[in-house]
Amino acid sequence: MKILIVGGKGTIGKHVSAHLSKKHHIINAGRTSGDVTVDIGDINSIKAMFGATGKLDAIICIAGQAKWAAFESLSEEDFYIGIKSKLMGQVNLVRVGKDYLNAGGSFTLTTGILADDPVVNTTAAALVNGGIHGFVKAVSMELKNGHRINVVVPGLVEDSVDDYGDYFPGYNPIPMNRVVNGFVRSVEGKKTGEIIRIF
Amino acid sequence: MKILIVGGKGTIGKHVSAHLSKKHHIINAGRTSGDVTVDIGDINSIKAMFGATGKLDAIICIAGQAKWAAFESLSEEDFYIGIKSKLMGQVNLVRVGKDYLNAGGSFTLTTGILADDPVVNTTAAALVNGGIHGFVKAVSMELKNGHRINVVVPGLVEDSVDDYGDYFPGYNPIPMNRVVNGFVRSVEGKKTGEIIRIF
Repeated sequence: MKILIVGGKGTIGKHVSAHLSKKHHIINAGRTSGDVTVDIGDINSIKAMFGATGKLDAIICIAGQAKWAAFESLSEEDFYIGIKSKLMGQVNLVRVGKDYLNAGGSFTLTTGILADDPVVNTTAAALVNGGIHGFVKAVSMELKNGHRINVVVPGLVEDSVDDYGDYFPGYNPIPMNRVVNGFVRSVEGKKTGEIIRIF
Repeated sequence: MKILIVGGKGTIGKHVSAHLSKKHHIINAGRTSGDVTVDIGDINSIKAMFGATGKLDAIICIAGQAKWAAFESLSEEDFYIGIKSKLMGQVNLVRVGKDYLNAGGSFTLTTGILADDPVVNTTAAALVNGGIHGFVKAVSMELKNGHRINVVVPGLVEDSVDDYGDYFPGYNPIPMNRVVNGFVRSVEGKKTGEIIRIF
């Protein structure tokens, strides 16, 4: 398969990219480096990316930001950071990407544990994650040409413990290979509309 | 209790308002009519509303719109209709309203069945509903002064069958009194961070 991985050089993405590259042709997209570059917060950048990649068999997104801060300190604009990037960025990736996805191809989006099990300072991120879960379930019924869509929901992953462990007291870090398998299940399996929780 | 109901004249709101008014002092807020008027898509309108109501013991929102249409026909702006109104409108109601809510008071937001169980043409609405669910769980841990927050999630309600029944083939309509009880449970109970599913 010819697979685009947006965020293929990131903390999780590099493991997904390395694993899938054993069997598939991988195109890595990043904000500033990669085989192609993209800012998923900008629909014109998304359109340019797909113009460069051409037709694909699978589209994976492990990218997008949201602001982590105390609820009291979050401005309306702070909420919109995540809405424009990780939420609508991923929605727009599907809106534009469906025309570049071969019949039977799949989308795999990424959120995180916070919609189900939030921690303090994550209201804006939990909102974004929950929004993507609702979207994925709903849009899975409307995609055409046999297209599938799932979302992988990692918990605190082992490689993020140094940066994020303090936010998640008592949470068991998830081995990277378990998270990678969530993406494999989505890309190489046949399910659609699934919230693939890895925590 | 002194209770503000945004959307207190709507399909569900009028039942909630009628029931709660037996024991409580109700202030109804609507877009064009009511004891006070508000456009929840406009934060300045929200601020003006709370300036008019003064301190409250409970804040209920049964308002906000989102566009229902086929995924292929939804523009980016169409998604933002729901994001600005039902999603960030309710978030802003909490952001501003917390300063007008007495100690121990509650917020009760409203979504709908679509985040859990979407039907065709509801991608934008399912996204909004899921976003609110994530937000409510997360923010419940950060509210101060004993404030609580829950969200009521009605299925297809009996009074909406004529307008929306065709979207929900085979769904059992929910009696209005069952939905009203979801709001009563949130306002008069003690739970917080709950997704109160009534379907």
